[in-house]
Amino acid sequence: MNQAEFFQISGIVLDLAVEAHDLLRGATQQEIPGVREDKQKLPNATITNITIMNKIGERSMGKPQGTYITIDAPQLRSANPPVHEEIAGLLAKQINLLLKKYNVSSNDPVLVVGLGNWEATPDSLGPKVIAQFTVTRHLLKYVPQDLPPGTRPVSALAPGVLGTTGIETAEIIQGVIQKTQPKAIIAIDALSAADLHRVGSSIQINDTGINPGSGVGNQRMGINQNTMGIPVIAIGIPTVVNAGIIIYQALNQLKQNLPQANLQFNRNIIQNLTQNVLSPFGGNLTVTPKEIDELIHNLAWVIGNALNRSLHSNLLKSNAAIPLH
Amino acid sequence: MNQAEFFQISGIVLDLAVEAHDLLRGATQQEIPGVREDKQKLPNATITNITIMNKIGERSMGKPQGTYITIDAPQLRSANPPVHEEIAGLLAKQINLLLKKYNVSSNDPVLVVGLGNWEATPDSLGPKVIAQFTVTRHLLKYVPQDLPPGTRPVSALAPGVLGTTGIETAEIIQGVIQKTQPKAIIAIDALSAADLHRVGSSIQINDTGINPGSGVGNQRMGINQNTMGIPVIAIGIPTVVNAGIIIYQALNQLKQNLPQANLQFNRNIIQNLTQNVLSPFGGNLTVTPKEIDELIHNLAWVIGNALNRSLHSNLLKSNAAIPLH
Amino acid sequence: MNQAEFFQISGIVLDLAVEAHDLLRGATQQEIPGVREDKQKLPNATITNITIMNKIGERSMGKPQGTYITIDAPQLRSANPPVHEEIAGLLAKQINLLLKKYNVSSNDPVLVVGLGNWEATPDSLGPKVIAQFTVTRHLLKYVPQDLPPGTRPVSALAPGVLGTTGIETAEIIQGVIQKTQPKAIIAIDALSAADLHRVGSSIQINDTGINPGSGVGNQRMGINQNTMGIPVIAIGIPTVVNAGIIIYQALNQLKQNLPQANLQFNRNIIQNLTQNVLSPFGGNLTVTPKEIDELIHNLAWVIGNALNRSLHSNLLKSNAAIPLH
Amino acid sequence: MNQAEFFQISGIVLDLAVEAHDLLRGATQQEIPGVREDKQKLPNATITNITIMNKIGERSMGKPQGTYITIDAPQLRSANPPVHEEIAGLLAKQINLLLKKYNVSSNDPVLVVGLGNWEATPDSLGPKVIAQFTVTRHLLKYVPQDLPPGTRPVSALAPGVLGTTGIETAEIIQGVIQKTQPKAIIAIDALSAADLHRVGSSIQINDTGINPGSGVGNQRMGINQNTMGIPVIAIGIPTVVNAGIIIYQALNQLKQNLPQANLQFNRNIIQNLTQNVLSPFGGNLTVTPKEIDELIHNLAWVIGNALNRSLHSNLLKSNAAIPLH
Repeated sequence: MNQAEFFQISGIVLDLAVEAHDLLRGATQQEIPGVREDKQKLPNATITNITIMNKIGERSMGKPQGTYITIDAPQLRSANPPVHEEIAGLLAKQINLLLKKYNVSSNDPVLVVGLGNWEATPDSLGPKVIAQFTVTRHLLKYVPQDLPPGTRPVSALAPGVLGTTGIETAEIIQGVIQKTQPKAIIAIDALSAADLHRVGSSIQINDTGINPGSGVGNQRMGINQNTMGIPVIAIGIPTVVNAGIIIYQALNQLKQNLPQANLQFNRNIIQNLTQNVLSPFGGNLTVTPKEIDELIHNLAWVIGNALNRSLHSNLLKSNAAIPLH
Repeated sequence: MNQAEFFQISGIVLDLAVEAHDLLRGATQQEIPGVREDKQKLPNATITNITIMNKIGERSMGKPQGTYITIDAPQLRSANPPVHEEIAGLLAKQINLLLKKYNVSSNDPVLVVGLGNWEATPDSLGPKVIAQFTVTRHLLKYVPQDLPPGTRPVSALAPGVLGTTGIETAEIIQGVIQKTQPKAIIAIDALSAADLHRVGSSIQINDTGINPGSGVGNQRMGINQNTMGIPVIAIGIPTVVNAGIIIYQALNQLKQNLPQANLQFNRNIIQNLTQNVLSPFGGNLTVTPKEIDELIHNLAWVIGNALNRSLHSNLLKSNAAIPLH
Repeated sequence: MNQAEFFQISGIVLDLAVEAHDLLRGATQQEIPGVREDKQKLPNATITNITIMNKIGERSMGKPQGTYITIDAPQLRSANPPVHEEIAGLLAKQINLLLKKYNVSSNDPVLVVGLGNWEATPDSLGPKVIAQFTVTRHLLKYVPQDLPPGTRPVSALAPGVLGTTGIETAEIIQGVIQKTQPKAIIAIDALSAADLHRVGSSIQINDTGINPGSGVGNQRMGINQNTMGIPVIAIGIPTVVNAGIIIYQALNQLKQNLPQANLQFNRNIIQNLTQNVLSPFGGNLTVTPKEIDELIHNLAWVIGNALNRSLHSNLLKSNAAIPLH
Repeated sequence: MNQAEFFQISGIVLDLAVEAHDLLRGATQQEIPGVREDKQKLPNATITNITIMNKIGERSMGKPQGTYITIDAPQLRSANPPVHEEIAGLLAKQINLLLKKYNVSSNDPVLVVGLGNWEATPDSLGPKVIAQFTVTRHLLKYVPQDLPPGTRPVSALAPGVLGTTGIETAEIIQGVIQKTQPKAIIAIDALSAADLHRVGSSIQINDTGINPGSGVGNQRMGINQNTMGIPVIAIGIPTVVNAGIIIYQALNQLKQNLPQANLQFNRNIIQNLTQNVLSPFGGNLTVTPKEIDELIHNLAWVIGNALNRSLHSNLLKSNAAIPLH
């Protein structure tokens, strides 16, 4: 059984388009019809731009048409403020490009949603970002004179997770946008990777939102232009790997290391095996590094800094003394 | 200038009906038309039941018609688990009475809202309560077979505060109830008292919700049956006193201590004085005890325990192994 | 390669004596010289008492001589307050027995140490327990008249982890006991299990302290009677499983499922394989359930409740209004 | 009664030397023997350097001989990252000057202590700073090859507060430095101001450490060169004002507003009055702004950034990928 089949039978959806694409292309690096990939190498980062162009690409990738940008920057995983600032700049540029693509102008209202559970460190990236950028919607409403002209109304929400609220995250957001009428959503989420090397070092930005099965939160209803009625830009960073993937990788490695055994893993064997090992907690088990707290701390800062740069360019230029609340 | 006038010119609304009533009745303990008060003394608590019966009572109290119960239990401020459990039982009983009054039956869906800011300890009571009781709405939807019959769907929300989200709390809740259709809201909030003795020791339960100017969060739009379309039971505990009140109390004390000076404080003097002293941070200044963290920790446990007892009586009887999420 | 060898080459030390013992006894359930095991079945818990009696037992178990009690209570993993309270009572009794064994009398000073990292949820059990019981040492020093006679001086410390402080945890504790002279230490720690079924459901209490390689924190210097000069009672609950173990279990399962392949995994194969899969983050990778936050919340309450019952029996009887600080 | 007398009878010690000095100099701006003050105006900050030169200055100021620098930067209270970075640079320079004064060379080990209570927002500045800079002591011990030559060993400790630990903070630190032998301590603490305008906008750096009665934590034993045996540089920012001061300021204002009443407040009147109003919670009451969480968030970042710049100049130049743990 190949990796793609394994993901399918295990119900694992790859959050990162770049991983889904690599998987499809395989060792032979074949072209995938309906999908385009561009790579750009920078001193401290590699930017991969994947476009799913049509229904054919959609079907093979298992992801909706749209743009998926990945910034790979392994230095995000070390204590290196100057590089973190540089990456924040790259991220801001990508956010701006996507806002522009959807004709969101520089003073259109934007809602930033921090998905995930602030009480569980590996899933707390979204809510932690909420404290890291400037919210202005209420100031523009109640004290507009305190802000320079052209300031964009930005609001923020950390809706919590299904297990804590009993409510689907997408329903909460739908309710809020109906009341507040933003022109675009930027949704931040902790993702799940298929490779531990990507944990804490890849940032994905896409314009297709958050879709079922995606993210650690496992939302059932998507958060995308279809369900929300406005463009949804999603920013995600993997913080965990599904525990089943670790087992699959080990088995695969084994096959390569023991060619003489001529191992063949069929569907039944694999399913049986992962289910037996990972049955507790309903299989909701993730692999995560111990130093996850410091990692999340740095990543939240990078995303918050990028949001300020891209959403508040007018405000930042003005050097105004923006009230905290 | 008397205290009532002071509150008025300072824009201070008394969160506790029992304080508003005491203020009106004054030293002479006169009856207030349209308002009824009953007191019940228990070994570890006093329960005061204030009913605002009509428009006349409404006008004099500055609060909408309805029931306002206060449980005064100074032992809430010490480390005393058995007494805390007893008070939780008293609170559960009061919640049940109000739910019954509005014909909310034992398996009707209820949304618990934790108002306030979880990042600022004195204002974190509401969000901290959210982790202290069992949420079941999603379990009933996705794994109903895991729960005993008669389990009530309970959902929870910590919407955040205007300064963090840029969105009025009431708007967020309106959006959510429109999507999830609960039959009643229970809103938890940290309140502001007019007397430091009440901080951490009085619990108010009312059926009129949260109204403008009320609570530390200073929401502009009310959260009540009018704005939400369903009954709103509010549970609040004072955790701070407005800094202006401390000054007023000191001046008043001074007048009594220096009768010979024949001090008369008119509106101008008082206003001038509090504004001069309390101008920074837009006057948004509160007096709070240093040990506020441990106080909030205990109070959140008491309210959470009471919510479980009153909302999940069927579940608790069943001794079921309720899944955590 | 059998499981014992796997743990050895992977540098994995089993935190739970009950798991180490099971591993040694194997399928044949053979007796281990120098080790005694007693089991007691209760309605909601099984208590296993393992005594390592001598050097022979020490060598085979890889753990110092002493008593290791495990309370297995799967209901700790569900939302069930009455059962949680019952387990807290069982735990209190075991703590009392160990304190008695070391002649720690009911008013001897005790230091409770909450090991681990409060910023990383799976490792935050120790620090979270610190807020859940009553500290009295300072009150007895500054306001003894506020406490009933016979109150025990209890102090508490959350020293942090090596990665945050740059200091070995054992060194911090040594410094503190030198200054404060307690008669015993109770150390709380999140543990690592060899089986996901034990995560959040087994409580180990031992009188040999915390030893190198043990616990999520991976302290290098032990915290035990040797290094501290006073008895150290350790209370631990597994919250994670080492990621390498998951791989080993899968391989083992595979061998059983494919008997015809006659798979033999030697040292090289296994080492190669786990290292390849788990190289990022220096192999410091753990498997943890998603609902870890609620689990930790409940477990901290259980341990705190047990500490209050066992350390403050006099205080609790008195029904005193203990000041919060 | 003048303000100095009020502070004395109320047991209030001014944390900020600049406030103590202003108080002494009074309206006439008289020179204080034994004390020297220099002021430097910069675009976004004013730096005041007060030196207490001898015993005479010590007695009048009520503070030990030494250097007290205050950076006043009201923009710290608004959302303005570029100015925050500039202030961090100014603070780093002052830290460097004091380290140099005590011959602490660029690779001497330094222990940073975050005083205060991380659970109570207004008192959480110290512990929050701990997460904001790079700790290297353990890396130099276990993986020295990963760090550039000349890297300074930096360790960190958040010892907690007396009410939570039952142990004097100074005792914990003494124990730790005995074990770890740093050459200097940098202690971070939330302070109490005598004026709300200074809350969140003044940074004090001194070389006399933390002394009894100083800071929100109210430590009884000082943390200074005398008690610790090594230089102690303290960095503090006021986050609260003592509630008694607010009352005093109001009374004083009253006197000025009502000259005709010829008010004279003697010791008895004032004491009586503040005690009556502020008796609950043992008078441990502070005035704090509601937006305290965002304020602390920004201030912790500024101090952490300054610590990195001043303690890790070699590391930062190297552009090394410093491991997180």
